[in-house]
Amino acid sequence: MKKTITLLFSVFFGYAQAQNADSVTIRKIYNEALSNGKSYDWLRHLTKQIGPRLSGSTGAQKAVDWTKQVMEQQDFDRVFLQDVMVPHWVRGAREEAYIQNGKTKTKVPIAALGGSVATPPKGVEAQVIEVKSFPELRAMSPEKVKGKIVFFNRPMDPTKINTFEAYGGAVDQRANGATEAAKLGAVGAIVRSMTNVHDDYPHVGGMRYATGVPLIPTAAISTNGADLLSKTLAENPNTTFFFKQNCETLPDAKSYNVVGEIKGSEKPDEIIVVGGHLDSWDLAEGAHDDGAGCVQSIEVLRIFKSLGIKPKRTIRAVMFMNEENGLRGGIQYADLAKKNNEKHIAAVESDNGGFTPRGFGIVGTPAQRVKVDPWKSLLAPYGLLEIGAGSGGADIGPLAQQGTVLFGFKPDSQRYFDYHHTMVDRFETVSQRELELGAASMASLVYLLDQYGL
Amino acid sequence: MKKTITLLFSVFFGYAQAQNADSVTIRKIYNEALSNGKSYDWLRHLTKQIGPRLSGSTGAQKAVDWTKQVMEQQDFDRVFLQDVMVPHWVRGAREEAYIQNGKTKTKVPIAALGGSVATPPKGVEAQVIEVKSFPELRAMSPEKVKGKIVFFNRPMDPTKINTFEAYGGAVDQRANGATEAAKLGAVGAIVRSMTNVHDDYPHVGGMRYATGVPLIPTAAISTNGADLLSKTLAENPNTTFFFKQNCETLPDAKSYNVVGEIKGSEKPDEIIVVGGHLDSWDLAEGAHDDGAGCVQSIEVLRIFKSLGIKPKRTIRAVMFMNEENGLRGGIQYADLAKKNNEKHIAAVESDNGGFTPRGFGIVGTPAQRVKVDPWKSLLAPYGLLEIGAGSGGADIGPLAQQGTVLFGFKPDSQRYFDYHHTMVDRFETVSQRELELGAASMASLVYLLDQYGL
Repeated sequence: MKKTITLLFSVFFGYAQAQNADSVTIRKIYNEALSNGKSYDWLRHLTKQIGPRLSGSTGAQKAVDWTKQVMEQQDFDRVFLQDVMVPHWVRGAREEAYIQNGKTKTKVPIAALGGSVATPPKGVEAQVIEVKSFPELRAMSPEKVKGKIVFFNRPMDPTKINTFEAYGGAVDQRANGATEAAKLGAVGAIVRSMTNVHDDYPHVGGMRYATGVPLIPTAAISTNGADLLSKTLAENPNTTFFFKQNCETLPDAKSYNVVGEIKGSEKPDEIIVVGGHLDSWDLAEGAHDDGAGCVQSIEVLRIFKSLGIKPKRTIRAVMFMNEENGLRGGIQYADLAKKNNEKHIAAVESDNGGFTPRGFGIVGTPAQRVKVDPWKSLLAPYGLLEIGAGSGGADIGPLAQQGTVLFGFKPDSQRYFDYHHTMVDRFETVSQRELELGAASMASLVYLLDQYGL
Repeated sequence: MKKTITLLFSVFFGYAQAQNADSVTIRKIYNEALSNGKSYDWLRHLTKQIGPRLSGSTGAQKAVDWTKQVMEQQDFDRVFLQDVMVPHWVRGAREEAYIQNGKTKTKVPIAALGGSVATPPKGVEAQVIEVKSFPELRAMSPEKVKGKIVFFNRPMDPTKINTFEAYGGAVDQRANGATEAAKLGAVGAIVRSMTNVHDDYPHVGGMRYATGVPLIPTAAISTNGADLLSKTLAENPNTTFFFKQNCETLPDAKSYNVVGEIKGSEKPDEIIVVGGHLDSWDLAEGAHDDGAGCVQSIEVLRIFKSLGIKPKRTIRAVMFMNEENGLRGGIQYADLAKKNNEKHIAAVESDNGGFTPRGFGIVGTPAQRVKVDPWKSLLAPYGLLEIGAGSGGADIGPLAQQGTVLFGFKPDSQRYFDYHHTMVDRFETVSQRELELGAASMASLVYLLDQYGL
């Protein structure tokens, strides 16, 4: 009995000591990020000096070269590129669009959705069918829709507390609207922007065509434009809509994932990834989406080096290419991991904006999630109170098949879709403190993953 | 035994039913705030049409008249004013200041602290003593300080996760710096702005003079200005600083707290207050501080009426006057409550900005705090995860002596001091969703307080 008590006491005491040492290290991580952080300066360069960086663009190439250089300057153990062929879609000259109500012509802001075809050179003008859902559209006769423009106008649900949930409930219109409209003979599809705010920016994003269905041009319209169009249609159902866009899909282009690495001291063959995606939409500086995730990931490794934390396992910062319109970088990364027999125990992605940290979503087995429980009390003092089953991240998603546990960094979601995929996703909307707190949160999680594995 | 089990079951079942009904009501409260909320439009008017509203100013009077009118239009059961005499400090013409380093003169942004005296009409120019703390200053000989300007340059600690804690650790310089400097014969006191960001705005705020000490002029300098002054002094200790300010304290002015009320149906004599303060600093639109708290408080009552929630107890929205430089409204409110034998069971204040809600700080006995525990699971789905002992609010503070339990609404703190007490505390920095979520959080808490008491 005495032995058991002694043993229990030792176990408990050992546990408490470890908790205390971890607590001290995590405090140091936050102090470093908040006092000497580099992520904000890096983000300024990525957004202001390089700017938009859609896959295949010169901006994307500059971002590859520059992040590689930044990580080399940080003297990480290894910095390398992974080749990946990416889609190369270009917008061409900016779009034009107007609402024609009798003799009144009103210009409205639109932008072609990524992957869309162009209109004929003179544009498309047609009457408009407004719908809120695919079932509503499908219930219509092809005669009614044929030759018209379908206008998908279901807003994001403002009552969802997590805005990503509201986004998930509306984004089918953007992804598949053109296909659904084309099935009934429409000549174009206009989609209400995915945002809760009333603004004048088209919020773009990726779309795809189903095979065997005519490729019709599709564009996002600003929420104010959508409200105006809807109101005008209610007044005059014969209102027509004109739009002209000049986009095209070029042959796939060569690009890269950019990887920086600190070699593990005890288990170098076990890899922990922390990453974001380097590409952005062509109209955006890509500050929150996802410049933030990239600079935070590099910052995680910088903090480790700066504090002299020598990880047991290998830690990699990965700038994935082509999350926005293909996910080729994420797929390629996982393919190479498999081919090279690499063992990725965990991957952390930051692709939800550079806002105040609230927690992490976990994609793993219940047993793996239980392993995280003892860490919660270490992270709670930093406001990380939402740690549990959730979403990982698009780029790290393909690693799940290899048994990698995924962690999606979860910042506050309220303002993300104010900026998402628009020209206002710019540096000035990012708070230095919020960005740095995110980097520190990720570094703390990576530290614990490295210490204890899963 | 069977009886006991039946009883236990009934109690539990009754509890579960109540929880479910409350859960439904809280969901409705959020839906109403997020779908039909009025707080954002009200805030636009208060900041853009009325603007700055320091106690005693015409802006403050306009804000009294307008909020009274808004609440009357909402058809609350009773809307009334409470007279209160307030300090009347005016800035006069904007300040001038420069650093004189040999022949180089560099202008820097300063603003007189609220309550400060003016400089002589021609301004003050003197050599500068830079200090980080009062002990450092007190250790100096009066000969060294006499005739000089003391420059208080201790920054807010960036490593504090809650920025209010960092503010609390620096604000003594602003409040008492002039007195400490004057004790040693200084002719002026310049104080580094209370913010974590590097900007060009002086962040003003209240200060006070101790009796028996000469009244010397004191001003806030922007953080960039403070950094420049510090750097210049390091290069050339003979650098002088010039500043000229034109402020003065006029006789006390008559002003008002504005109160709107929904009468309780069962216990009308038990009052629950929800409030913010109507005054702001003269350089600010007072959007986060504290227009947000005012419009959220009115919104709480509007939501109740709109959803047909008939409170058992009397619910009051209170716009307190003069939080910024006197707290006269808060003191007067508590005095009148006592004089009128009113029983205030709880008071909720929103004065920490219109950011994403994180919880409530509670000032009450442990037994009272325990009463709140069953509510936590009802509020957690809305991100209200930080509910526990904490700060209440300045305006409701004086009610504590009467046994009122205080609740301080706790939004995310990271960006609050980016704007605090400056010209950039303006409408555009407030997110509609975040503001509305705050109003819904407060309404939900008030609903539970009304249902269950304390």
